This record gives sequence, C-alpha cells and structure tokens, in this order.
Amino acid sequence: MALKTPEQYKQALSKLKPNMYKFGQLIEDTTTNPHTKGTVAGHAQLYAAALDPEYADLFSTTSILTGDKVSRYLAINQSAEDMITNCKMKRAAYHLTGTCTGGRCAGYNGLNSMWITTYEMDKELGTDYHERLKTWLRYAQDNDITVSGALTDPKGNRAFPPSQQEDLDMNLHIVEVKDNGIVVRGAKVMICGTAAAQEIFILPGAGYKESDQDYAVSFVIPKDIEGLMIVEARHPSDTREAEEGFDVPVKIGGITQAYLFFEDVFVPKERVFMCKEFKYAGAAVMNFIMPYRAAIGGCVAGQGDLMCGAAALIVRANGLSTRVVNERLIQMYINNETTFAVGVAASALGKKHPSGAWLTDPMLANVNKIHVGTLPYDTKRIAQDISGGIGETGCMPSYVDFIDPKYGHLVQKYLKASSTAESRVKIARLIEWLTLGAGVPGCMHGGGSPEGAKLMVRLNSGIETSVAYAKRLIELEEDISEPAPKK
Amino acid sequence: MALKTPEQYKQALSKLKPNMYKFGQLIEDTTTNPHTKGTVAGHAQLYAAALDPEYADLFSTTSILTGDKVSRYLAINQSAEDMITNCKMKRAAYHLTGTCTGGRCAGYNGLNSMWITTYEMDKELGTDYHERLKTWLRYAQDNDITVSGALTDPKGNRAFPPSQQEDLDMNLHIVEVKDNGIVVRGAKVMICGTAAAQEIFILPGAGYKESDQDYAVSFVIPKDIEGLMIVEARHPSDTREAEEGFDVPVKIGGITQAYLFFEDVFVPKERVFMCKEFKYAGAAVMNFIMPYRAAIGGCVAGQGDLMCGAAALIVRANGLSTRVVNERLIQMYINNETTFAVGVAASALGKKHPSGAWLTDPMLANVNKIHVGTLPYDTKRIAQDISGGIGETGCMPSYVDFIDPKYGHLVQKYLKASSTAESRVKIARLIEWLTLGAGVPGCMHGGGSPEGAKLMVRLNSGIETSVAYAKRLIELEEDISEPAPKK
Amino acid sequence: MALKTPEQYKQALSKLKPNMYKFGQLIEDTTTNPHTKGTVAGHAQLYAAALDPEYADLFSTTSILTGDKVSRYLAINQSAEDMITNCKMKRAAYHLTGTCTGGRCAGYNGLNSMWITTYEMDKELGTDYHERLKTWLRYAQDNDITVSGALTDPKGNRAFPPSQQEDLDMNLHIVEVKDNGIVVRGAKVMICGTAAAQEIFILPGAGYKESDQDYAVSFVIPKDIEGLMIVEARHPSDTREAEEGFDVPVKIGGITQAYLFFEDVFVPKERVFMCKEFKYAGAAVMNFIMPYRAAIGGCVAGQGDLMCGAAALIVRANGLSTRVVNERLIQMYINNETTFAVGVAASALGKKHPSGAWLTDPMLANVNKIHVGTLPYDTKRIAQDISGGIGETGCMPSYVDFIDPKYGHLVQKYLKASSTAESRVKIARLIEWLTLGAGVPGCMHGGGSPEGAKLMVRLNSGIETSVAYAKRLIELEEDISEPAPKK
Amino acid sequence: MALKTPEQYKQALSKLKPNMYKFGQLIEDTTTNPHTKGTVAGHAQLYAAALDPEYADLFSTTSILTGDKVSRYLAINQSAEDMITNCKMKRAAYHLTGTCTGGRCAGYNGLNSMWITTYEMDKELGTDYHERLKTWLRYAQDNDITVSGALTDPKGNRAFPPSQQEDLDMNLHIVEVKDNGIVVRGAKVMICGTAAAQEIFILPGAGYKESDQDYAVSFVIPKDIEGLMIVEARHPSDTREAEEGFDVPVKIGGITQAYLFFEDVFVPKERVFMCKEFKYAGAAVMNFIMPYRAAIGGCVAGQGDLMCGAAALIVRANGLSTRVVNERLIQMYINNETTFAVGVAASALGKKHPSGAWLTDPMLANVNKIHVGTLPYDTKRIAQDISGGIGETGCMPSYVDFIDPKYGHLVQKYLKASSTAESRVKIARLIEWLTLGAGVPGCMHGGGSPEGAKLMVRLNSGIETSVAYAKRLIELEEDISEPAPKK
Repeated sequence: MALKTPEQYKQALSKLKPNMYKFGQLIEDTTTNPHTKGTVAGHAQLYAAALDPEYADLFSTTSILTGDKVSRYLAINQSAEDMITNCKMKRAAYHLTGTCTGGRCAGYNGLNSMWITTYEMDKELGTDYHERLKTWLRYAQDNDITVSGALTDPKGNRAFPPSQQEDLDMNLHIVEVKDNGIVVRGAKVMICGTAAAQEIFILPGAGYKESDQDYAVSFVIPKDIEGLMIVEARHPSDTREAEEGFDVPVKIGGITQAYLFFEDVFVPKERVFMCKEFKYAGAAVMNFIMPYRAAIGGCVAGQGDLMCGAAALIVRANGLSTRVVNERLIQMYINNETTFAVGVAASALGKKHPSGAWLTDPMLANVNKIHVGTLPYDTKRIAQDISGGIGETGCMPSYVDFIDPKYGHLVQKYLKASSTAESRVKIARLIEWLTLGAGVPGCMHGGGSPEGAKLMVRLNSGIETSVAYAKRLIELEEDISEPAPKK
Repeated sequence: MALKTPEQYKQALSKLKPNMYKFGQLIEDTTTNPHTKGTVAGHAQLYAAALDPEYADLFSTTSILTGDKVSRYLAINQSAEDMITNCKMKRAAYHLTGTCTGGRCAGYNGLNSMWITTYEMDKELGTDYHERLKTWLRYAQDNDITVSGALTDPKGNRAFPPSQQEDLDMNLHIVEVKDNGIVVRGAKVMICGTAAAQEIFILPGAGYKESDQDYAVSFVIPKDIEGLMIVEARHPSDTREAEEGFDVPVKIGGITQAYLFFEDVFVPKERVFMCKEFKYAGAAVMNFIMPYRAAIGGCVAGQGDLMCGAAALIVRANGLSTRVVNERLIQMYINNETTFAVGVAASALGKKHPSGAWLTDPMLANVNKIHVGTLPYDTKRIAQDISGGIGETGCMPSYVDFIDPKYGHLVQKYLKASSTAESRVKIARLIEWLTLGAGVPGCMHGGGSPEGAKLMVRLNSGIETSVAYAKRLIELEEDISEPAPKK
Repeated sequence: MALKTPEQYKQALSKLKPNMYKFGQLIEDTTTNPHTKGTVAGHAQLYAAALDPEYADLFSTTSILTGDKVSRYLAINQSAEDMITNCKMKRAAYHLTGTCTGGRCAGYNGLNSMWITTYEMDKELGTDYHERLKTWLRYAQDNDITVSGALTDPKGNRAFPPSQQEDLDMNLHIVEVKDNGIVVRGAKVMICGTAAAQEIFILPGAGYKESDQDYAVSFVIPKDIEGLMIVEARHPSDTREAEEGFDVPVKIGGITQAYLFFEDVFVPKERVFMCKEFKYAGAAVMNFIMPYRAAIGGCVAGQGDLMCGAAALIVRANGLSTRVVNERLIQMYINNETTFAVGVAASALGKKHPSGAWLTDPMLANVNKIHVGTLPYDTKRIAQDISGGIGETGCMPSYVDFIDPKYGHLVQKYLKASSTAESRVKIARLIEWLTLGAGVPGCMHGGGSPEGAKLMVRLNSGIETSVAYAKRLIELEEDISEPAPKK
Repeated sequence: MALKTPEQYKQALSKLKPNMYKFGQLIEDTTTNPHTKGTVAGHAQLYAAALDPEYADLFSTTSILTGDKVSRYLAINQSAEDMITNCKMKRAAYHLTGTCTGGRCAGYNGLNSMWITTYEMDKELGTDYHERLKTWLRYAQDNDITVSGALTDPKGNRAFPPSQQEDLDMNLHIVEVKDNGIVVRGAKVMICGTAAAQEIFILPGAGYKESDQDYAVSFVIPKDIEGLMIVEARHPSDTREAEEGFDVPVKIGGITQAYLFFEDVFVPKERVFMCKEFKYAGAAVMNFIMPYRAAIGGCVAGQGDLMCGAAALIVRANGLSTRVVNERLIQMYINNETTFAVGVAASALGKKHPSGAWLTDPMLANVNKIHVGTLPYDTKRIAQDISGGIGETGCMPSYVDFIDPKYGHLVQKYLKASSTAESRVKIARLIEWLTLGAGVPGCMHGGGSPEGAKLMVRLNSGIETSVAYAKRLIELEEDISEPAPKK
C-alpha cells in the first residue's frame, strides 16, 4: 500500500531543508509556520481523503506502473472516466479545504503532460525521457509524495521572446549540459502550493524557436535542492493568518503562491525530461493546459458550492428563509454546474493517446477556461449580494475587538441576529475569505488566461466546416473565401 | 436491415389519409404541400444520414430488441455513450437541415421515457405495459417509421388543475375504458414535426392527483387515426414557403408545429401504455424531459454553428476578412459549445436504470435548459450584429423584385458587394431565416420552460450538502436551520 | 398654426406621384396599400399627437425661425431639455405606434446635423448652405411635412473607398454640377419610413478623402422627384399585412425600409447643402449619429414597455398573477430604463453649438448605441420566455383557421385560457409581432452598428486621463507610455 | 469665506476627544493613526479641491442660506444641475482619493433628506424641525465641517420589526424624551468614513408602524459626544496600512467603516429632527436613498476609471500596447459610463420639491443601484483579467521581501518587465487594492441592496400603463386584470 497518512506526509515535509521565505523571514517548518500551515493542512486532508472510504474512489486509483493503489494526483489519466473523476476530485478537494490545493494539481498535470510528450520525443528522437519519467513516477508513487508544478516564467518584456530579452534569465533556461545532468538558471513565478510540496515538476514555456532552445527544459526536483531559493508571495489579508481567532475562519485549508529562484541549480540527468528539444515545448504546454482547463471547472464549482452554503447560512443566521434568495441561489448553482459540466464534457469527448494517456478535448477545455474567467466572479458577487454588508467586505470589528474586555460585549450584542454573534461573524468571515480574502485563488490566470483560451477556441472552431454547412444548406456554389491580406 | 431510404419514407408518408389543415385548406400530401414539404425534406435527410457512412454511427444503432441496425430515433439509450451520441446527432441534424427535425426527437424521448416508466409500472402494479411497448417498438423499428411526440396540453386556465377546469377537455383525457382499448378526448398543442411523422407518441402531463386520474394517459397512434384532426400553426414568414425563389433560402429543411384535436379517438389496448396510473405521470414527464433538456443543447449548438458559418460568409461576401469579427465569432462558438457540453456532461454523469435505459443527470439537464433559454439568443443577436442591416431583418427587396424586369437590374446592381448579389442575398436570407424567419424553432419552451428548469435546479441543488461543507470548513457547531414558516 | 391634421397629412401623401414598388407591383397610394398603410397610420398618429394636449409638449415645439408652433420633428434642438424631450418623444411614439416611425426621425437628425455643418461650412468657406437650409426648413415647417432621412450607401466591396469601387455608383455621388443644381447617381439603401414621407433628406457617408469628393453631397428632395425609383424591402411576415384578421395585430403602426435608386436625379441648387466639401462629410455624419444614438434609447425603451405590457397581459390571460414573473418583468424594465437613461444623460451632458443647436455628448451617445445592440434583445427574449410557446414563435393556427367553419371552433376552444381565445391570440400575436414579426425594426444597425460605436467609445475614453489619475494616486513618476509600433 | 483648508480640517479633527477603537486600541488621533490617516488624507483632498480652481465648481457651491461659497457636501441640491454636479463630484472624488470618501457623502444625503422631510413635518404637524435643521446647517457651513451619515441599524433577527425584537436595542431608539432633548440607545453599524468626520447625521430606518415609534428618530451629533463609543470594522488587508512601503500603494485615500454604540446618549433638542413621527421615517429613508443611488453611479465610475488607468499601465509596464486589450478596455469604459449616465439621467429627470430641494427620479435611481450591484464587479474582473497573475490577487512578495538584503535583488530582478520592477509592483498593487484590497468600498449594500432596489423598480414601473399601451395598440377591449389572490 503506497498511500501515506496525513501524519507521514507532514513528517516528510518537516524534514525538508528550509529554503522558503516570507516577510523577510526564513520559514523553518511549513507545517507550523502560520503562513503555510493552512495550505499544508489542506493538502494533508487529501491524504486523509485517499484513505477515507467516502472519498477513496475520487482521491486514489490504481497505478498503471505497479497495479498498486496510489494517489490520483500521481496517476496517469487513462480514460474519460479518469478525467471525469479528476474533475470531481477537484470539486471535492475544494469542499474539504475551501481553496486551491495547488501543491498537487499542477504537478499532476505536469507529469501527465510529460508522459505524453516524452513518449513522442522518445519515439521520434530516440531519447529515453519516457523511461526516466516512469522511473521517477514509480518512486513518487511508492513514496506518495506531493509534487507541485511550475510553468510560468517571469517573461520580462512581453514584446520579446526569451532569447531576445535584455536579461536572458527572464525565462528559466539551461546554462550548461553536463554528462550527468544539467545546470539551470532563472525563475518560475506565482507557483501555487509549493509550500505544501516535497518536489517540484518543471515545465517549459511555449512558442519557442530554435534560438530559444535553451529554454526548452523540463525536469523534477526536490523542493530543497541546492541553489533553489523560494520567496512566498503575499495574498489578500495574509497577515491575519498569524492572528488568533476566527478572522481567518478556515484552519484546514489555505493557499500559497511562490517565486522560485534558480541560481545555477544542478539537476541530475535521470530527473530531466526535456533538454533543448524546442519543437516539443509547445506540445508539453498544450498537454498540460488542456486537462488543467477542463478540471479547473470542478475547482471553481467546489468553491461556488461553499459560497452557496455560506450564503444560505448567513440568510438563516439573519432569521430569514433561503426562499427569499432563491433566484440568486439558483443562479449560483447554475454557474457552478456550468464550469463543472463543461470540464466533464471536455473529459468525455477526449481521446486516447498511444502512450496510454487520455487527451482532453481542446475546444471544450478552452471554452471552460473562458467561463472560469467570468462565472465564478458572478457567483462571488451574488454571495456578497446575499450576505449583506458584513459579508460584502467583511465589515465587522476584528476578533481582538470581538473579545475586547472593554467593549467586546457591545460588538457581540449588536452582531447577534437569529444565530449567535460568533456563528454569524464566522459565516460572514467565510464569505469574505472566499470572495475577497486569503482564500481567493488565482483562477483567472492559473492554467493560462481567458484571452489565450479565446485564441484557442478560434483555432479549434473549425469555421470552414461551419461555412460548408451553411453553403450546403442554401445550395451556394460561389466560392466566397477569406480575402487575401492587403499588401 | 430495417433502415428505410428517404424515398421509402416519403412514399409511406404520402399514403397516409390526409387530416392536416393550414390556412383553411386540407393538406393532401405533406411531401408536396409547400408548408410541409420542407420539414419532410429535412426528415428525409435523417433517413439518408442513417445510410451514409459519414453519419451512420450517429444516426443509427443496434436494436436492443432484435440486434438489427435501426434508426437511433427508435432506439433505447442504454449508456452514457448512447446519450452523448444523441447530443451529437441532434447537432448534426441541425447542420443538415438548418432547423428542428422535431418529427422524430420528441417521439424518441417519449418511447425512452415510457420504456422506463412502463417497466416500473409493470414491476409495481403487475401490468403489461412494458411488453406492449416492446411489441410496438419492434414494429416501429422493423418499419423504420417516423414517430413524433406530443406532451403539451392546452391547459386552459393555469390557476386550476385538469379536473377543475371549466372545460374538462383542456387536457387530453380518457372518456371511456373499453375491453379492447380506450377513448380519448382533448387536444395536444404546439406539437413539432407531426407533418413529417407517421405515428404520434402521446405522453401525459405532470402534477396529477387522484382526481386527475383520467388525464394520466399514454399511447401511440397512427397519424391518420379516425377522430384526430390536425391544424398546423403558422410561424414567422411562413407564406414565403409558397413563393418562388430564395426568400426562403433553405429547401432541405423546415419546421412545423401542429394542434392536434382528439374528438373521441379510440386507441386499441395494445397501443396504450398508461391508463389512469396518475402516480406515474410525473415520472413519465421527468424521464421525458431530462434527456430532452440535455440533447437540446446539441440542437441549438448546431443551429449556432450555421449562424457562425453564415456570419463568416456575409463578412467575406462584403469583401472583408473574418478577422475583423473574431471576438464576436469566438463568442458565438463559446455559446454553441457551452450548451452542447452541458448536455454531454448530463449524459456522461447519468446512470443506468434497471430497465436497461440510461438516465440523464437531472441537475445538468436542467441547467442546460436554462442556458438554452439564453445563450442561443445571444448567438442570434451576434449573427445579426455581424451581418449588418440586410441580415438583421432581411432588409432587402423580395425575390420577385430581385428578378423584376423593370428594376430588378437595379436591385441586383446595388446588392452586389464582393460576391455576386445573389449569393449575398441568399446568405443574408439564411441569417434572417435562422434568427427571425421560418427556420426559428421553439427552443425556449420546447421540453419545458427555463423557469420550470430553474425550479428543478433548486430541487436538485443539494443545498443542505453545501451548507454542511461550509459548516465543516469553519467548524461551526450551532444548528442554523431554515426558520419555520410563519403562521 | 403650422401643424397639420392626420387627414391633411394623408391627403398630401396621396397626391404624390407613385414611384414605389413592392413584390413587383407599383404602390399607387401609400395610404391605402396594405404594405405601407400601417406605417402611414403610425406617422399620422404623430400629427394627432402634436395636436393632442396630452402629447403636445412632446411632439411639438416653437420654431427657432418663426416662433410658430411646429412639429418637433422639424425643429432644431437648442438645449439639453430639447434633446431630453426628443428621447421622451421617441419613447412615446413607440407607445402609440408599436414600432419605428422612421419616416420622421432620420430626417429630423439630418436637418439638425446639416444645421450645424452648414453653419460651419458657411463660416469657414463663405458658402451659403446654411441660408438655403433655413429657407427650406421654413417651408417644411410651414407645410408640416414628413421628411425621411437617408444616409446608408450600398457601399459595394467594403475593402475599398467609394472612388476605388469597381462600380462607382456604389455610393451616391455627384455626376454633374450645373449652374442651377446638381445631378446625382447611385442609391441609398435600407431607408426607413420613406413610404410615409413627403420628402427625403440626404446625408453623405464618412471617411472621405479628396479623391472621394464627388461623394460628399447632401440635399433634400420631394419623394416623387424625377429619376428616383424606390423599391420597398420585405420584412418578416410582411405578407400578413395583406391578410384579413389579427395575425398582424397592430393596425395603427408599421415599419417600412426602402431601397432608393437615383438614376441621374437633378436637384436644384437651393436644395443642396453640401457639394464636394469632403472635409465636412465626417462632421455631418457625426452630428447625425450622436443625437440619433442618444434618442434611440428612448425608441427601444418604448418598444420594451410594450413588451412588458404584453407580457403582463399574457400571464393574466393564462389565469395567473404577474407576481409569478416579477423577477423577469423587473429585468425588462431595467433594460428599458437603461437605454432611455443613457440617452437622457447624453442629452443632459451635451453642449451648445455656435449655430444654436445642441450637441449631444459623444461618449454617452455611443455607449447607448452599444446597449441598444444588446439590452432590447434580452428584453425580447424575456418577453418570449414569459409568454410561453404561443408567444415565442406565434405558434398558433392562422386567423383563417381560427374562423374556419369546419374546425375553427376547435381552434378557439383550445386557445381559450382565462381570457377569451381571441384576446389571448391577439396578445400572443403582439408578442410575436414585436419580437419576431413585422414590427421588428432595424435598431441594431440603424444609426450605425454597435461595433462602430465601440470604436468611438475608445476614441472618447480619454484613457491617458485615466492613466494620469492612476499614476497620481500611487505617486508613480516613471514614464510608462505606449510602446512604439514594431517595424 | 466659509471654506476651510485641509490643514484647518485636520487640526479640527485632531482636537476631538478620542472615542474610536480598532484592534483593541484607542485611536488617539485619526489624522495620524495608520488605520485612519488614509481616509483622513482622502477627505482632506476634498477640502483642497473646493479651493482648487480646477475642481472648485464641482466641490463647492453657493449656500441657499447665506449666499456664501460653501462645500457642496453641506449644500442643499436645488436643481437638476446640482444633482448632476453631485454625480460628477463623486466621480472626481474617486479619481483623487481612489476610494470612497464616505465621511461626507452620507451626511450630505442625510441633511438633504431631512431638509425635505422636516419641511413636510413642520407643514403638516406644526413642528419646528426644519428651522432647527437650518440653524444647524448654517453652523455646519460656517465651520465647513465633515459630517458623516448613519442609517443602518444592527436589525437583529430580520424576521421581526424593531419593537418585537428580543433585544429592543437592535435598532437605535429613543429611551427618554426630556424637555431639552432626547436620550437614545442602540447602535448604527457599518458607518462609512466616521473616522474622518467631525459630526454624525443620524437617519431612522423605514417600515415603522406606530408600535415602532420610538425608532423614528433623526438627529446630528458631534462625533465625540458623551456616551458614544465607536469601534472600527476591519477590511481586507487592513493590517498593511500599518506597514512600511507600497503594499498599500495609495497614501492619499482610504476607507473606514465603523460600528457606533449609543449607550444612553443625550442629544439636545435643537439637534433633533425627528422624534417618534414614525409616519415620516419611510419618507426620510426614501429621500436619503434616491440621490444616493443616483450619485453612487458616479462613485463606481470614478473607481472604474482608475481601474482602466491601472490596466493600461500594467499592459505598458509589461512592454505591450493597450491595443491588445482594446475590447476589454472598451467594456470597462462602457460599464463606467453606464452607471454614471443612469445617475445623471435620474438627476435630470427629477423634480423640484416645495422646500426648494431637488428630488431625484426614483425609477432611474433604483435602476442605477442595481447596475452598481453588477457592472463594477465586471469591471474589476476585467481589470484582473488584463493585469495578469500579479494583479489578480497581488501575487508578489511583500515590500519587506522586495527590499530584503539577502534576496530582494532577486525579487526585483524577476519582477522587472518593460518598466522598473518598482513601478510594475506598485501598479499591480493598485489593481489588487482596488479589486481585492483595502480600497474596496461597500458599494453593493451602501445605500441599500440591489434586491431592495428591484422591489422599488417594480413599484415604480407603472406596469398598468404599459398594459394600457399594449391594449390600445391591438384594440383589445376585454378586461384582463390581475386575478384575485387565492384564499
């Protein structure tokens, strides 16, 4: 049995050499530091879920490599059912933790993407990347490690490709190829969940030409590898995480995003899965983002479900029936189900790759990314609408004031409605946390921006097929094609 | 081989005894009458498609009864794949015919619904309805007939149930039960595609109590059965169908909706599938509308695809590149794919019924009905936006004016842009036909209204589960339930 | 007193020499021809309204030229109040006639635009156009004539300007300048309300360079001028206008759009207001569209009000209370009031031109055009949603069937709900007429397309001012400007 | 000259007796406390603006009482122009301060509301409230004080009116009427800008019956009155306000919301404007919210302008042209202009009250509140979309990390794009601050919720008028009215 317990996971995390910083301080232990322990607690719940009969089908599966029960986050998606279960797992993970458990999902997409991409490279180039990946994956499964994934480069001036940047480090790149490995420099930024991860799976960017070949690189490293320094980004209201009380109302989940600085990091050969094969970088990214963009619909649906629950609670805490907000609750559920459903459909309409992995339908995956860039924002707005002023911006005195010996009794007296003041405040804080606070994930740009997804919708739209249908229908013979671009 | 050719289908239709009227005239032969031949041509294409290698997988399948190749429209959906293919078939049917081929799809939903409902009735009540249905279905498959479906009653004053209407005929009902069958009276209204059908499958309404038991009735009849009189409804610009030229630009598709008047029609016992079992009427309706609401997303997606094609054509006919309308085209595709995807997901997340039929996920099916009540309207608006004034309301002189000997040359001279005038007019007429004209189907209310779907979303939302997730997340112990209704 | 009665107006119309065609037939008298009498009846109501104490303040005003009471449609807008009253008049005109009374409003905008433009031309070029316009306007006011306005050229291949078209007639142009006038050739297309007009006011297009100077032309002509041939465009369900009964439920309003063919028409000098001054063509168009785009918000609000009324009626005719559709009715009103309000605000924030005319705020006028391209479509959709299947596509047997001696009683029996069948059908036909039928105006593209309006919003957005506010707020010193375009 | 300088204003503030608390601490001086000095700086800018020739017309006007130049925030709105200028002032105040300067605007609405309401009370009841108000207003103008306004009561269990609450203090109420004044107890909550105010204007709630008469109370008090204790609410990321650096990027604006606890506060008679006249409480609230709901459209437009500016800056800081985000920027401006315009129109279509005050159009004011509950949320979403990951959630290391001696150089190196790292971070922090941070105001519920506004739209919709228009248009004689409610 490869599955680890939450305790085993936390112990393993604690053993890592500290190399993360926030607010100018070294984080000695991510499992106890106030700014990381929330996300660690969230990820620990994923371990518990894999062992919990109620959730085991979602969070675990059978290894393609060993036949063992392994975490789904370390498995290759082999079928529509796998991909649909992935969407469901993401939704459930949100229910359990309240926010993004990003320390596993980008890693999961990364290893699935490189499973396909290395298979193709090996077949076409005679390399042995796929075998290397298998070996590492077996190790990862056997130890049930948490692997975050890193794709986004700093990019510098967006008007120029990597090789034409003033500072060549603006995209992570290979500075030396040795017999036994490579040396890389640069950074990956806004990387979700690294605080909760044991290893980090690195993907290249896309759109590389031959001159950018040094940037075509993929590998996996232990988080505490030499030469890697990590600085945590701040997020809204993050200092509350170090406070007492319930102004951060969720203790069993949290989110972190990190800046990873690679200062000439040596990566041993057996952990390298792409090394300058620039023609495959684009495919690696595509294979990464398609399942990501499908499954993220489940994430935001799960977040939306919590908003529905919180909205219902605040209405009742105020002494009213949810019937008075029915129309709005229904709209919230419509939003939730839509992103979930489009992801499920993208999964169902995918196809099998020769490597054994399942490819998500690109059209629907991208349509979903666009919805993820709008519908959850509407859901948040409605949650704030329903919750009244105290939920809209968390407009209540702080926990310190709530328990203040001089005037805490007044704060409590006047925050009471139908429920106790404490319950009402906690519910309102949950709405704030979900919509404006430390629980807000970066779903708009995670897995790429809606604008990029629109371009891909255009590419996948098959407009000439639509034109052919229209022409056939009205028996139009004339050739009416796109005019030649003007000189 | 049970599949019929388009010609065989039309011949069979021609042999039916005429009992349909429009504009005060008896329609002698629906295959040639100008107001029905379009929809017959559309349905004939479905026969052709089932025999066409390109489309056969969509439009035909294997009979659960005989193992023969049969039309999918006469098959029982047995799996997620069947239901997904149903969604794809609906989309393809729109591509081929430009509008709703309603003469088959409600019948298809009706027989699938009653497959499940009769199975349950037989099991619980010891009736033999399921066997009757099987026998009839086998006959229908063997003869590859087109079976329309009829659900909507006139309903009269919506404030009262059937048995309390001033005129008891406002809902179709049993007036006599004989040994060998039943006699029914009343009407079914706004029934799609009956002009193209050989038989009609009747479903009961929902919400019946014991006092309404006479209204709980389901059966199937030949269209030309004695006592049935059919009057066709008019639709926008329908008189153009009797004109020469291209003001109706589509000759291979069309839509009809009929009012069916049952004046003491005798239905033989073996064609009766429900007879006063009022407790099952609700289930019959639910089992009908769930797959309907899922698959209708494919219908409107197919219609939207044609709008995209037509929009691209008009832009090019004007001499421009589709690049100038990219943002809007993308939005059209997003709309199309969303309704299609939610239907696919509703299919994928369904489950198997003991009768062997596949049940669609009710939450997603209803969410889709709501989207079908908004997104296609946005798509139409964009099509009109892109097409300019001539597409917006078909603002061009008539075909008669186009070819007028005195001034037709001027009409043509000034309607020419980059393409010929004729092509440009036909494309603009297609946009008019799809958005404001005779090709507009009744998708808003077909399969029930969006408002009804919202109620079902509420019922299926599992709000207490959402509440439980939210409570667990913030460790809220207090019982905060819905307040008791005020006295 | 310059104001004419409806009867005087119709008599004047009847005296015009017939030169309009539809369906290959010459329209002998627009006041009686079935395809034009509706719009004439609508315009006649405007005359009645100007004389009706309830409406006189909206529909009439005091002449800037004579101090007489004149139709507002022939007056110069001199203040914010005038422009706001214009918005209100448009809304009221819709209430009275059910659709666009386009025979007066584009003429009104045309003469207001040229009032400003000729003033500037005269001042800068020493021409006498402004005086010519005054003289004509005095005549028009004295005779209280209906003047339609024509702006849209056929345009041909949109990739080329007028002077580079293969056929130079694709935009209306001057073919000869004589001592006593000019000769013009070409066409104006999709011109609203010409059937109800006595004269036609011609505007140039925009974007002309010196090589396009022959296209910079503005004048006003009697509708029956020699060399002008008019062909009416068809619109949805227009043949119903020639039928008996209530399938066109509105008899006191209607809409027409015409194609005007100018075959070497001689226009006397005193009716010419621009003759090759290409630099002023753009301003003429801008001065035309700004008030148009403001006031059209009133038009669609008035149409929306009717949809609200019709929706409320159908709900009650079905036996229900409007409370069940409250949420949707409110949304309809929000849509109505929004376009009305943005137009009012564009009026209120305008400014006085030295010529005495009032200039509408360009930013808000264009924002309104964009809303007019979306919100009314939502209102229509909701009206169809509320109205059920019979309103959605007018899914009812025709009037001929309704009164058929053989089965009309059945049609009537089953169309009855709480109200009589006839009332219910008429209400449903009104909804069809407003949303899918002969009453649908061309608001999307009338006064220019939403896409063009977006470009003008961008131009008027003052983005550098926004940038300056943002920079000041965060005390940002660095110069961060738009990058130079790439070579 | 009654206008004070920013310095005079701050000095006056500093002299107030401290009675505000946050985080368990007494705020000794709101002009220097880190949690209040931002909002004080913002309000000080309003004083500067009234003296600045560029802004004086917006921020000052002539006193109806004395003819002196006074702050517009202390003036009675007497005309459409006054109300339109109010909308413009709100927009400009946002440009200057980046957020809500709530310390003046609710007071402004309060005194305008009570100007009207006291006029009516005096006229009908023979009271002298209007004179009391005049006397106080003259004092307020002469001293150019900042007056915040307080309306929202804690309300307790929303199922019960004030007099039936378990705890009668859940709405502010009169506990004793003395000869020389009244004693009040209870609270007002979520009161904006009190930190920056010298006095507080109290309004009653609405919907009071005779049994609730003790709750019908209005008065104005110095902020440091005996018996009043104020606890500041927290808001997102508020602890950053006490940090060094630019993680709160705006130093010249800020927002606060307070809980006001009245523990038997004595208010002298001459400062009391309503005392148990429960029938006038509803009018007082209506007269308060109408101009509020109109002008708030200007507030959110001003906020939106800043988002446009910030979005343009981040695009350029990344090295790109704003052309690539044109479509989205245009949508942001459309949103901004719409709420602004509807407020302007509500102002323009108002009417004069006998008291001399201007009444805002209630229909449009409420329509605007609904837009304020949706459009700015869309604008925020687009700002986050355009800004990329670093703007979406402010996903960057903290200022402390930015300048960290060990790794600050890496943070800076990799945050640089086309502009400097510091500029780019400040811009991204501005977007965070505006959309997710300490600058987010409570616009959804300020001035009442969108849901309440919908009810008022319904009340003002004049649906029977719409019905009458529709009936007239189709010559419908039958009386089709609302059905009687079922027993």
